[in-house]
Amino acid sequence: MYIDQMGREELEHWHQIFCEKHKAFRASSLNLDLTRGKPSTRQLDLSNILDGATKGSYITSEGIDSRNYGHLAGLPEMRSLGAELLGVAKNEVIVGGSSSLSMMYLAMLFAWQFGVSGKGSSWRDQGKVKFLCPVPGYDRHFSICEEFGIEMIRVSMDEDGPNMDQVEAFIANDKSIKGIWCVPKYSNPTGCIYSQNTIERLAKLGKISSPDFRIFYDNAYAVHDLSEDGIDLPKIMDYCREHNTQNNVLQFTSTSKITFAGSGVSFLAASEENLNVIQQHLGVFCIGPDKVNQLRHLNFIQDRSGLKLHMKKHAKLLQPKFSSVLEHLKNNFEGSDLAQWTTPKGGYFISFDTRPGLADSVIELAAEAGVKLTPAGATFPYGLDPDNKNIRLAPSFPSLDDIDRAMRVFCNSVKLASIKQKIGV
Amino acid sequence: MYIDQMGREELEHWHQIFCEKHKAFRASSLNLDLTRGKPSTRQLDLSNILDGATKGSYITSEGIDSRNYGHLAGLPEMRSLGAELLGVAKNEVIVGGSSSLSMMYLAMLFAWQFGVSGKGSSWRDQGKVKFLCPVPGYDRHFSICEEFGIEMIRVSMDEDGPNMDQVEAFIANDKSIKGIWCVPKYSNPTGCIYSQNTIERLAKLGKISSPDFRIFYDNAYAVHDLSEDGIDLPKIMDYCREHNTQNNVLQFTSTSKITFAGSGVSFLAASEENLNVIQQHLGVFCIGPDKVNQLRHLNFIQDRSGLKLHMKKHAKLLQPKFSSVLEHLKNNFEGSDLAQWTTPKGGYFISFDTRPGLADSVIELAAEAGVKLTPAGATFPYGLDPDNKNIRLAPSFPSLDDIDRAMRVFCNSVKLASIKQKIGV
Repeated sequence: MYIDQMGREELEHWHQIFCEKHKAFRASSLNLDLTRGKPSTRQLDLSNILDGATKGSYITSEGIDSRNYGHLAGLPEMRSLGAELLGVAKNEVIVGGSSSLSMMYLAMLFAWQFGVSGKGSSWRDQGKVKFLCPVPGYDRHFSICEEFGIEMIRVSMDEDGPNMDQVEAFIANDKSIKGIWCVPKYSNPTGCIYSQNTIERLAKLGKISSPDFRIFYDNAYAVHDLSEDGIDLPKIMDYCREHNTQNNVLQFTSTSKITFAGSGVSFLAASEENLNVIQQHLGVFCIGPDKVNQLRHLNFIQDRSGLKLHMKKHAKLLQPKFSSVLEHLKNNFEGSDLAQWTTPKGGYFISFDTRPGLADSVIELAAEAGVKLTPAGATFPYGLDPDNKNIRLAPSFPSLDDIDRAMRVFCNSVKLASIKQKIGV
Repeated sequence: MYIDQMGREELEHWHQIFCEKHKAFRASSLNLDLTRGKPSTRQLDLSNILDGATKGSYITSEGIDSRNYGHLAGLPEMRSLGAELLGVAKNEVIVGGSSSLSMMYLAMLFAWQFGVSGKGSSWRDQGKVKFLCPVPGYDRHFSICEEFGIEMIRVSMDEDGPNMDQVEAFIANDKSIKGIWCVPKYSNPTGCIYSQNTIERLAKLGKISSPDFRIFYDNAYAVHDLSEDGIDLPKIMDYCREHNTQNNVLQFTSTSKITFAGSGVSFLAASEENLNVIQQHLGVFCIGPDKVNQLRHLNFIQDRSGLKLHMKKHAKLLQPKFSSVLEHLKNNFEGSDLAQWTTPKGGYFISFDTRPGLADSVIELAAEAGVKLTPAGATFPYGLDPDNKNIRLAPSFPSLDDIDRAMRVFCNSVKLASIKQKIGV
């Protein structure tokens, strides 16, 4: 369907058809939800033996009593696992509580409030502070910047990561830019994978940036492949060592979408110099992380190959849901001028673009018909999508049947909104 | 022993005796530690069934899947337990992760950075900000103030809590005082219990203070009685309601010294108005707390009476250790002019005062003889004990035998340091 090539009569014909379908959906009182990037019940069930995984043995193989206070950097064995996940050395990892978002918040707070390299380096004392935000991106990242009054600058997200020409130009010309948000693998929401070239160029930013520039590198979907083989990302820290920019990257990940969404284990990886500064403040914030939960995860995950096996079970549950969404999109919009979308090989989201100016109308129409979608603009800083076209679809939580029902509503909403705009009703 | 009444000869006689004992201790190469306010292995063992306490049933009685994201304020049933513990209504409680210290840090951060009542109320925009610190007190409280550059003012800790005449005078005369640290029951380290009068006067401070004044009321030892019967503290929130100062108190507690020190559950209680402001920022910091651990605790603790029973088991293990320390102190220093100390009915510490100017020497002598004590000054803001006399003794972790050995060294170190000072060697 190419609506730009239709005459008035044809447009009105289709308008009536989509309107009637919309009415029928409204009458059927659906209550569906495609907003939430959270694991389904069956995915959570995969880790049900987690509670009890210590089997009452709380002392680690290195003799640490996981139940007591202390060990600010986490259990040594867990640091090793994090090191493997994030491609760094063991002493470049801190293992925290259940939320990597909290780790990012604290890293931002410490830099803003106290500085990345001790007295005199606080971002808050340097006037305007800015962050680069590849868009569309993750709303919770943007919320952290907004919380601290850090000005967010949009840069384009391409198929192989942030547009590095834009990124480099901004950084070279403006020393008040102190960081960039990155989700290098299955980026939220486009699902794109950063190329080797992108990752190397990111690692080199420290050579042209302000010295206290920090890449917030949220590798949330490091092992969350939908395909059988999976993909291993080049290690950014290797490039940093090559270019002597180790201090310019802070990496994050967690097991939230590996085991239990709310009760996982988080990791922060950074140079020892960075970790020393962070731990000075982390030691005021808490006495130590929940090490019993770390030990549970160690016993459950075992090692990298145990992890890979476990993630294949997730993929088996997620893959049909992604396929269903993509099938609907293909059947409805392939060879049309109504929409563009991404086809991720992993992660939790599909990014969908309507014709410019329609995201909010589509979301409103879908809501009328009983399908909740992520609010328009959510994937942009300050909630402002300048083209009002991006919608994030999250197929992980609903059942296959619900996805099918919701996607029928969604596709019709897109068509109806498009035609309405075209004929001006 | 009254050294103030001794002549030179007698002093030198004792000096020689204590010196020789000290030498003997040094030769015996002890390696003991009275610094750590952490539960012993046997205490931790009391909660060993905690891991696995969900028995694989992760859905709460109210139908919440504890494994998934969300529920920023914690599980409703856990909020009820916290409400009972802290003497407030259920909707006045947030249940968090494993660290109440982190809750205090965040509450301080949010007030400092964003203000206790929205835009324009940030403490950081009000010039000098000060906190009252009853001394001796808890070093980690003081560290949070120091972290944010909040000036700490010492007030005396009496037998029934902070000296309220001093507190009221400071607050009435200085609107830059934004808070006070309190540990109302078995205060760290004196073990004192705030009287009803103290608690009511605290609740009335809001009537004379700056409107954004906040009492940081850390009820860390709410149920940590050593005696059979235990003590129930008057509820500060009841007095606040009477005097319409509900917004001036933030209460904290945790299960760290009930179940597992590093893997417990924390609680923050405050007026709904305060909680609304706090949750706005908490929602940027994290998606929700570890609810599986909350469910474990619910299943394990069950209710208030289950909790009381469990705490009696702790008391049975702790009581002999406190008795041993107190017995040594009594045998060595009762009817002397060498020392003063507290006799707590609960909590984790005994506060010991040497003659003025001797705490650091005692700690140094004990260290020489193989007994590690909390650093001198640790119980004071900025680590500065103006009288250099307070030493915090923590008998919970070592075995009874180790306490006995350590206390012999400690008592001799006190005597030796006292005589040395008196005769000027």
